[in-house]
Amino acid sequence: MTTLSITDGQVLRPDGTVTRADVLVDQHDGEILEIGTDLAGDETLDASNALVTPGFVNGHSHASMTLLRGYADDKRLESWLSEDIWPAESELTGEDIRIGAELGVLEMIKSGTTAFSDMYFEVHEIADVVEQAGLRALLGFTAITVGKDDDGARADMVESLEVARDLDGAADGRINTTFQPHSLTTVSEAYLDEFVPKARELGVPFHFHVNETTNEVDPIVDEHGVRPLEYAVEKGLLEPEDFVAHGVHVDEREIELLAETGASVIHCPASNMKLASGMAPVQKLLDAGVTVGLGTDGAASNNDLSMLDEARDAAMIGKLAADDATAVSAETVVRMMTQGSADALGLDAGRLEEGAPADLAVIDLEAPHLTPRHDLVSHLVYAAAASDVRHTVCDGQVLMRDREVLTLDESAVLERAQAAAAALVDRIDG
Amino acid sequence: MTTLSITDGQVLRPDGTVTRADVLVDQHDGEILEIGTDLAGDETLDASNALVTPGFVNGHSHASMTLLRGYADDKRLESWLSEDIWPAESELTGEDIRIGAELGVLEMIKSGTTAFSDMYFEVHEIADVVEQAGLRALLGFTAITVGKDDDGARADMVESLEVARDLDGAADGRINTTFQPHSLTTVSEAYLDEFVPKARELGVPFHFHVNETTNEVDPIVDEHGVRPLEYAVEKGLLEPEDFVAHGVHVDEREIELLAETGASVIHCPASNMKLASGMAPVQKLLDAGVTVGLGTDGAASNNDLSMLDEARDAAMIGKLAADDATAVSAETVVRMMTQGSADALGLDAGRLEEGAPADLAVIDLEAPHLTPRHDLVSHLVYAAAASDVRHTVCDGQVLMRDREVLTLDESAVLERAQAAAAALVDRIDG
Ligand SMILES: [Zn+2]
Ligand SMILES: [Zn+2]
Repeated sequence: MTTLSITDGQVLRPDGTVTRADVLVDQHDGEILEIGTDLAGDETLDASNALVTPGFVNGHSHASMTLLRGYADDKRLESWLSEDIWPAESELTGEDIRIGAELGVLEMIKSGTTAFSDMYFEVHEIADVVEQAGLRALLGFTAITVGKDDDGARADMVESLEVARDLDGAADGRINTTFQPHSLTTVSEAYLDEFVPKARELGVPFHFHVNETTNEVDPIVDEHGVRPLEYAVEKGLLEPEDFVAHGVHVDEREIELLAETGASVIHCPASNMKLASGMAPVQKLLDAGVTVGLGTDGAASNNDLSMLDEARDAAMIGKLAADDATAVSAETVVRMMTQGSADALGLDAGRLEEGAPADLAVIDLEAPHLTPRHDLVSHLVYAAAASDVRHTVCDGQVLMRDREVLTLDESAVLERAQAAAAALVDRIDG
Repeated sequence: MTTLSITDGQVLRPDGTVTRADVLVDQHDGEILEIGTDLAGDETLDASNALVTPGFVNGHSHASMTLLRGYADDKRLESWLSEDIWPAESELTGEDIRIGAELGVLEMIKSGTTAFSDMYFEVHEIADVVEQAGLRALLGFTAITVGKDDDGARADMVESLEVARDLDGAADGRINTTFQPHSLTTVSEAYLDEFVPKARELGVPFHFHVNETTNEVDPIVDEHGVRPLEYAVEKGLLEPEDFVAHGVHVDEREIELLAETGASVIHCPASNMKLASGMAPVQKLLDAGVTVGLGTDGAASNNDLSMLDEARDAAMIGKLAADDATAVSAETVVRMMTQGSADALGLDAGRLEEGAPADLAVIDLEAPHLTPRHDLVSHLVYAAAASDVRHTVCDGQVLMRDREVLTLDESAVLERAQAAAAALVDRIDG
């Protein structure tokens, strides 16, 4: 047994308290052996003047979209997608998607994220990157049938099934999968009827976009006479293991349905603000007993993948949505970005205690913006930034030590990404 | 003449374009001599792989409140003030205020801010810190008369006048002043009637809080029969040089009044979100021709003083307020945080061109979250963070070089602030 000791930190416990302790990790099993005092390990990570938190769990992302960061901003969702994002994505090669995933995963590790749930295509490329980078991921192929002929539509649904089957358990179990109908308005009813039963046989969660804008609500109401989440239940899409991204425009009945089914919501506040989609009723969802996690969505609508930025956004917008400054407190947000997302994704993670997976981040507290230290939970949500993350550990392995990522060659990734993005723009313009 | 050359950077010009250039600075006059190629100086700052921007202008702050960062969060404005902030502030000594200002100014320099407008008390302590730290400031004493006897009320108004008179032009002209009635509901009409004419004689701008919450609107309407900004005009508080903080709840007539008078608004999005005050109609204000700047407000309601965080917040919430993703674009926000704030404060700053003050920040672009580089203006608003600021220059002097602040002893400031905050909590609890 090789052990790693994270020493002298302020450790954030599952009950929200912070205690001065060492964290001893079994690197072979990737588990926390003990949290206590004077715990020596074969290897040591210094956490003095730092907060040790569970690694952040990014519940909804499109990691490879980092290549489109800043490519098109300040546009409405529909025109942004149809005029900018979809045309650009149609030019992406498998190699581009691998490079974009490297960049996204690099950024995640540097901002303390140890697990993410991704929706995209060319998923084997993304899986290779996750395997190398050392974090956990829930991957899947995102199927769209609307606007395609039957062959194309069917190919998408089949690929979503196949990817979910083939990649589940990859990378020594660090990769799991989801079945991914893109959304209720972009996958037609006939294909849901045909493929949902097959997907259920795989036993993987379903991950899809829902009620991001009112444009995703009205067509469902018009065509099916029920709200989108009622329709989702009818189509067998809301089992306890399933999770939906956004859930901005959900009414009381839909909130109840989420609570009753046990399906979870991944809140993506930055994307919802930047695209003016609206404010998800996060405090209402939580009060109803819905599991709420936190996600960044893609870098083109954010424009970064730091869960610390997302946490601040969630606390801020959650209060405005509730018209109540006591709503979506810092403690609540910390749960959302750790345990909440982990529960939504079905990951046994998001908490620091004996026997839990050794997925954690060490946040440097020695900085003007984190001084004084009245409340470290407040600092984590309202003041800490990606650059404050000192070390990142996943599955007992050190992915970043003193800001140096050990599993990826940072400067090579940046160079490849810049070149791939430039070539992409040339192809689009040319 | 001693010169400083900021070399090899991407320089953000007043028209929003970015060009590769050197910036040559006359350190004696504190002015930009030339922006061009191959400009050698006596001293050099490397700006390769970096964006050179005007130094950010924080239009509304209470710098010393850094000592209360994270002291009380997730509370409604009124209870937060009456139960937490005001009792804590009543315990602050002059020394605390000096230490808090050091911490605030240190954080500002580290995040690229070169000028700020502050509202507080014990203002001479803050002025000393500004003089040493090397940035610019508009300072003033904030007068409150409500809840005080006539002697106390009068003392406040007199101190606001005296501070405005005595400190104007201090620190070789880097310090200017404002007259500061705290708000329209916390300074009674009789004192406005008496002191506003005296303050006008000083020729300094007025800086006050306005329409932050509906609780600041309704009492004015009830008592005076007009909206707060109509009342402000009646009382002589809205001259072209004046600027108000917040302006969240302004109606069409008030927006018109701001445009007609030429008074400016400092938008404080983070504080407005965190206290659930509401969403200022920033795009409407801009469309009406109102000058809008950007401010962080105090660290207790933010909880950081980075204008880069504020910029992201402004773009995000501006779109939600307008229900339009094209509103408050990245270009607009960059103007708000530089030229907009500078114009509001009456500072000749906020732009990089020959003859302009040499107030600038150099933002490192070599990072995952700033890769690729499709659009540097987008990156500045949506992705850059305080820690990306490499150098800060104000009045031609280097305040920070390669993240090292040269005018303050960072570790000593952090230590003093931690000790002062701990002692403050002891006094409050004891
Ligand atoms: Zn998405
Ligand atoms: Zn204020």
